[in-house]
Amino acid sequence: MKTGSKQAFLRVVQFDEHGLIPTVVQDVKSKRVLTLCYLNREALERSLQEGKVYVFRRSQGRLMLKGETSGHIQLIRRVAVDCEGKSLLFLVQQRVAACHQGYSSCYARRLTKTGRLKIMERRRFNPAKVYRSA
Amino acid sequence: MKTGSKQAFLRVVQFDEHGLIPTVVQDVKSKRVLTLCYLNREALERSLQEGKVYVFRRSQGRLMLKGETSGHIQLIRRVAVDCEGKSLLFLVQQRVAACHQGYSSCYARRLTKTGRLKIMERRRFNPAKVYRSA
Repeated sequence: MKTGSKQAFLRVVQFDEHGLIPTVVQDVKSKRVLTLCYLNREALERSLQEGKVYVFRRSQGRLMLKGETSGHIQLIRRVAVDCEGKSLLFLVQQRVAACHQGYSSCYARRLTKTGRLKIMERRRFNPAKVYRSA
Repeated sequence: MKTGSKQAFLRVVQFDEHGLIPTVVQDVKSKRVLTLCYLNREALERSLQEGKVYVFRRSQGRLMLKGETSGHIQLIRRVAVDCEGKSLLFLVQQRVAACHQGYSSCYARRLTKTGRLKIMERRRFNPAKVYRSA
């Protein structure tokens, strides 16, 4: 994406009272929803500029490249904004897996008909190994 | 879903400081992300009980059935919760279209390579007609 081309887009985007915009991240190939993350203006600008997802990690109060520890980055293939400018949708190419628990998607747990929560997929990596050095 | 079966699930769900949980709504067939909405506890309980998406409409400060005016309701086919319990994913069967502007998805506007926002689909209904009586 051209640098400087994003100004019109940034004018449409509405950040919330914490300066964040919720962003749905979907796998461009499998179409699975991978995660919901939060971007501040800086995270959004860097994401658009570099084509990789940067987020504002609320628990740590800082900007980070999604996958900076694990290497499981998300390459942005498409960006959409909702009808009110209050949330974004990124279609991405995901390296390895999105979830820090080792699953492809953060939505690996499904509600069953009997009301239980059940993990519906196998781990793609072992979190204990990947995050050991972190 | 069995009434009363949802208690374990509700214990996992974390509502934010406004009593809401963000919920990604995805079309079960096309796999398109349709919208991001916000549910309070009552909206979630009714959604699970009736199998239709209820939301807490922040702009009006009230519970509503998604599609109550238009008839474009969302029938819930699958429910997933993220790894931290801070957001939900509903896979739904959408009647007509999800967006109040007449598009299948609220994410009809995409960012082009030249930095413009472009509507990438045709309207499924005419909002002026559907919401005229509202």
